[in-house]
Amino acid sequence: MVEGQQQSTSPLLVKKFGGTSVGSIERIEVIAEQVAKSFHQGERQVLVLSAMAGHTNHLFGLANQIERVPDARELDMLVSTGEQISVALMAMALQKRGLKARSLTGDQVQIHTNNQFGRASIERVDTDYLQMLLQQGIIPVVAGFQGRNTQGEVTTLGRGGSDTTAVAIAAALSAQECQIFTDVAGIYTTDPNIEPSAQKLAAISFDEMFEMARLGAKVLHPDSVSYAERFKVRLRVLSSFEKGSGTLVQFTSAKQPLEKVVGIAGVAEQAMISLPDLESGSESYQKIFQLLAAHGVEADLVSKTLSDKETICFTLNDSELDLALATLDSISQVVKLGAVHSHRKLAKLSLVGDGVFAKSDILAKVFETLTLIQTDAKMITTSDIKLSLVIDQSALHTAVRALHHAFELNKA
Amino acid sequence: MVEGQQQSTSPLLVKKFGGTSVGSIERIEVIAEQVAKSFHQGERQVLVLSAMAGHTNHLFGLANQIERVPDARELDMLVSTGEQISVALMAMALQKRGLKARSLTGDQVQIHTNNQFGRASIERVDTDYLQMLLQQGIIPVVAGFQGRNTQGEVTTLGRGGSDTTAVAIAAALSAQECQIFTDVAGIYTTDPNIEPSAQKLAAISFDEMFEMARLGAKVLHPDSVSYAERFKVRLRVLSSFEKGSGTLVQFTSAKQPLEKVVGIAGVAEQAMISLPDLESGSESYQKIFQLLAAHGVEADLVSKTLSDKETICFTLNDSELDLALATLDSISQVVKLGAVHSHRKLAKLSLVGDGVFAKSDILAKVFETLTLIQTDAKMITTSDIKLSLVIDQSALHTAVRALHHAFELNKA
Repeated sequence: MVEGQQQSTSPLLVKKFGGTSVGSIERIEVIAEQVAKSFHQGERQVLVLSAMAGHTNHLFGLANQIERVPDARELDMLVSTGEQISVALMAMALQKRGLKARSLTGDQVQIHTNNQFGRASIERVDTDYLQMLLQQGIIPVVAGFQGRNTQGEVTTLGRGGSDTTAVAIAAALSAQECQIFTDVAGIYTTDPNIEPSAQKLAAISFDEMFEMARLGAKVLHPDSVSYAERFKVRLRVLSSFEKGSGTLVQFTSAKQPLEKVVGIAGVAEQAMISLPDLESGSESYQKIFQLLAAHGVEADLVSKTLSDKETICFTLNDSELDLALATLDSISQVVKLGAVHSHRKLAKLSLVGDGVFAKSDILAKVFETLTLIQTDAKMITTSDIKLSLVIDQSALHTAVRALHHAFELNKA
Repeated sequence: MVEGQQQSTSPLLVKKFGGTSVGSIERIEVIAEQVAKSFHQGERQVLVLSAMAGHTNHLFGLANQIERVPDARELDMLVSTGEQISVALMAMALQKRGLKARSLTGDQVQIHTNNQFGRASIERVDTDYLQMLLQQGIIPVVAGFQGRNTQGEVTTLGRGGSDTTAVAIAAALSAQECQIFTDVAGIYTTDPNIEPSAQKLAAISFDEMFEMARLGAKVLHPDSVSYAERFKVRLRVLSSFEKGSGTLVQFTSAKQPLEKVVGIAGVAEQAMISLPDLESGSESYQKIFQLLAAHGVEADLVSKTLSDKETICFTLNDSELDLALATLDSISQVVKLGAVHSHRKLAKLSLVGDGVFAKSDILAKVFETLTLIQTDAKMITTSDIKLSLVIDQSALHTAVRALHHAFELNKA
């Protein structure tokens, strides 16, 4: 095969590198070397990059010297320069290695978004220009996290950022795989910093990955996971700095769940509010959660029980507790709240596994383990795919380790 | 007049602020305050900004860590982020003061250039979008120094940079004036650091300004001056930090030159090569200057004299002398050069004044002054508009001061 004349039957991979992976000229050179190697092995590649680590925060800092809440359009114009810098430098590093490469802004690729500056959604990715570059053996190096609205203004994407850019491009190009390179080797059964025997998963289902991401595994943003699932993009998480096949996020048949706990995620700094005397009826609930939402308080887990009387409780970030309590206080004239109990310094611990939580033996094992480590669950919620417990924050690490052991996740 | 509904009969000014003027958040706020004041006085304004001082060099430094000579397209993609940052911050600072403002890249304005990455020329400026913003009372804040080619790629302009952007926009919008804000109060009769009695000029002709710029006054790049003259843009140089009307660069009738020396410019670090034995005939000259140009050596002043034999000499930057001598050596087989004399540590001193240098009394006064300070002119060239002398670098300041006094430039 002649270089620069790669056949369109060669595998096409979209590879996303985060801010740490391109955090210095040295790291950019390391990535460029890997990309060159893959090129010579016949891979067709589209790169998607984040800004160099720290750069975006630096730009936000400049803006905040002017305004506490700067105009969203201008903020996007400002912070999008971070990715433009990293893609230009990467293109240079690839050219240094004799490869043809071209850096592209979101506008140049034609990543069309809606008008929501600062949290735009991708509506369409034009692939004509990317296809033309690939046909000419030119590696497109695309600025992540950004697009353009219909007026040609720079927008930046909401949550999920550059991961979502990579997934959207992979979907538009029907790429074989979208590879998310990070500073960890893949998705683990739990945080290896808490439980050293945590195992890297070779594969995980989209539903499981979504829950793991939502419940505290920080490797992928849940929005990019659901985007990938929606557009049928094969997603792989792997390390920028170590060899390995990472973790494949795969499609599983809904009728054949693994029926096994695959991972445990934990999030600290949680709080809980419970309302044991709330007057019955969904109208009260509606008012409460509408008002909380209007004040920017996100209720996370919500649970309602009925014994002698109804009790509703919900969790939220500890940092939002004071605001939530003040908000509840302000409607106590309108809604008969009764007592308002609140708890700080809690943690949320979640077991994730497709189709597993209808099974009583799993629940039994969870309670058995909690008893062993003398910890109470203050709240429990379950779905088809996960079981979440709220426990004291001080017990989080002990509980993660005990449950990891109990479900034999340390055995590869 | 209702704010944001300024009449299209209000004066329209294009204002360019250089890197020092926007070098920090504090300075951006100072400029924003001035712009707000002008807005409330009824001015319609288009701002053109350079990158924050030092930023562009930082980006070049990053690129040079990868490649000594990076790809010009990628370098433009990289360094154009500098201006994008400063315009976004300025738009925020204007909005903070209750003004409507919008930052724009060269691509968004539609500043169309040719394909010469790193030294592009502006071919066309679309004004539809700018006009629309102005009609809505929105202040356009344009990234200087950049444009787009027909493929939508980012280009940066050659010499003259952001000044040329401002002039091109002023021409396209038929603005009343293009104001170049700098860290000096205007154009002086000579460098005030050399001669403290140097006077700020209230006005100067385009020809004079062009020569002053070309001959060492660093305030404006000669290319932006000639661009302004070509497109009949009224140009004014003034200080970002002090009040004052600066210096107006004006059109004068060619038949009414001021017949007066208006300024003195000096440039150090010059060298001279003379070829006293060169065989006669323009073919030899052609070969020599073609080859020097091919090696990137710029001959500046060129003078040829005929007494008993022909002598040609020319000046160049001292830093290029070794390369020039090596180049001449390489063609000594083809062209009979004879002796090659070279001189280092010279300076070029130029007197500028429209229509003045045909007059013998001026020449007489120059020689009288040089005799007084015991300095020889190693070379003299004249044109309608200027007289340039080559003297020892060590005599430059003395000569500037003596001539400034002799021509009474210290008298306002």
